[in-house]
Amino acid sequence: MWIRVLGAAAGGGFPQWNCGCPQCRGVREGTLRAQPRTQECVAISSDGDGWFLLNASPEIRAQIESFPPLHPRAPRDTPIRGVLLTNGDLDHWLGLLSLRESQPLTVWATETVRAGIVEHNAAYRTLARFDGQCVWRRLRPGRSDQLMPGLTVEAIAVPGKPPLHLARLLAVGDEHTVGFVLRANGKSLAYFSSVASLTAPIRDALDAVDVAFFDGTFWSSDELIRLGVGDKRSEEMAHIPVQESLPSLARARCAQRFFIHINNTNPILRDDSDERASISSAKWQVARDGLEIHL
Amino acid sequence: MWIRVLGAAAGGGFPQWNCGCPQCRGVREGTLRAQPRTQECVAISSDGDGWFLLNASPEIRAQIESFPPLHPRAPRDTPIRGVLLTNGDLDHWLGLLSLRESQPLTVWATETVRAGIVEHNAAYRTLARFDGQCVWRRLRPGRSDQLMPGLTVEAIAVPGKPPLHLARLLAVGDEHTVGFVLRANGKSLAYFSSVASLTAPIRDALDAVDVAFFDGTFWSSDELIRLGVGDKRSEEMAHIPVQESLPSLARARCAQRFFIHINNTNPILRDDSDERASISSAKWQVARDGLEIHL
Repeated sequence: MWIRVLGAAAGGGFPQWNCGCPQCRGVREGTLRAQPRTQECVAISSDGDGWFLLNASPEIRAQIESFPPLHPRAPRDTPIRGVLLTNGDLDHWLGLLSLRESQPLTVWATETVRAGIVEHNAAYRTLARFDGQCVWRRLRPGRSDQLMPGLTVEAIAVPGKPPLHLARLLAVGDEHTVGFVLRANGKSLAYFSSVASLTAPIRDALDAVDVAFFDGTFWSSDELIRLGVGDKRSEEMAHIPVQESLPSLARARCAQRFFIHINNTNPILRDDSDERASISSAKWQVARDGLEIHL
Repeated sequence: MWIRVLGAAAGGGFPQWNCGCPQCRGVREGTLRAQPRTQECVAISSDGDGWFLLNASPEIRAQIESFPPLHPRAPRDTPIRGVLLTNGDLDHWLGLLSLRESQPLTVWATETVRAGIVEHNAAYRTLARFDGQCVWRRLRPGRSDQLMPGLTVEAIAVPGKPPLHLARLLAVGDEHTVGFVLRANGKSLAYFSSVASLTAPIRDALDAVDVAFFDGTFWSSDELIRLGVGDKRSEEMAHIPVQESLPSLARARCAQRFFIHINNTNPILRDDSDERASISSAKWQVARDGLEIHL
């Protein structure tokens, strides 16, 4: 399995357009030991030929251009065989609308996530210009599906909540957020980029795979409040803070493990922060744009 | 007046994610005398302090980061005082959804364009989380409005059509597309990035200003068909081809004039093409990312 991180940041990216916090300022000015990151998107392939994207960030055009194996090989073409969505947050699917230009596309998502996009947004009709332009394949938590010969995905239910823009439009169900276990050639990857709390099925997945990606949005629960840039605690945004998840995650049995979906305010973005040292001690790393893993 | 082109390409950008035409291939491989371009977005300022964006491309995050005067100067802040939309095409407004993070925003558009975005897309609710988050100011063709002290915009009706994703949802009216004449400090800019046909008011505007930007989407009417990458003529997409507009545009009296919203297939993107030589002879240039004009 070939894994390429196209973007490792949470919604807004790092730096964030309207953020002048010390970290965003520092990375813009080059005075911080940290590298900029675009919004979360990961490409995976089991054969190096066909690719699947985990989430579709608004920055997908530049992300595709940054990685030659994703470039077209004919006048109208793409090696992208499908996009898998973890939830309906805007930073996870707005990029779908940039994958138009009459290119057939397959999107894997739960029915809840599909409905939130397709049934409530006229903009989505750009992907429904002809029959078969966008084919939706339903993910069901607990079930394993074949993405292509030799590559499967199992969706794992994850505690989450509906995205803010769908509040009161969608029923509160249990399919708002999923994680993935992808398997190919005897190797496996667990992908949980949005996690409100650590459940037994998530822990089991982290013990059973070779590589894991996990929600690294916030370091602490009151991070935004303390910096004066927001009034919500991480729990209200359905993200378990790293400070809280780390003791359990340190015991996970997967060999390579990365935090992803990192918010611009999270101190683990700084190569020389105490918080980065803590996660390094626990044998976790921070995903960055351009990171590649070959299994 | 300070003008900065943040992106000069049509929807899809140059290169386009799923396009392997000779030009997209050549610019990716570095074998073409052409520079990559992101999707259309232009920043203007009359005082170097507050800025207005003409259209909001899906790539707006990287475009803002590319130009330091647009960076925040406080923990949560933006010098962007407003966004002006020429029409409701996705490549012109998807970027609005990336200008969230609870930042107050002012958007100038016709009522038709506003309704197409606000009333038909749940995703838009990300900009309606609190009263006053996104304030819409109505543009009316033929009327001049003050954007900020010393800077005015006059909207000019332009022949156009509703965006494809709104077909059958919006009534066919005459406010689907506008151009702008912006005036400050005795200087003026005409901006027409989507033009189905050259009308008298457009010609008058091009004669009356110091700088003009004009629709350079396609060189020829059958460009997509001839390349085998599409089945529509430029007229069906509400863009007058440069080949057809150039004889009239050559006579425009503005001193500095640029084609913008250039499709990846348009040969004027190549610095050494015959088509580029034609427009140079007519004293027109091709806008590129990073171009700056000070008036």
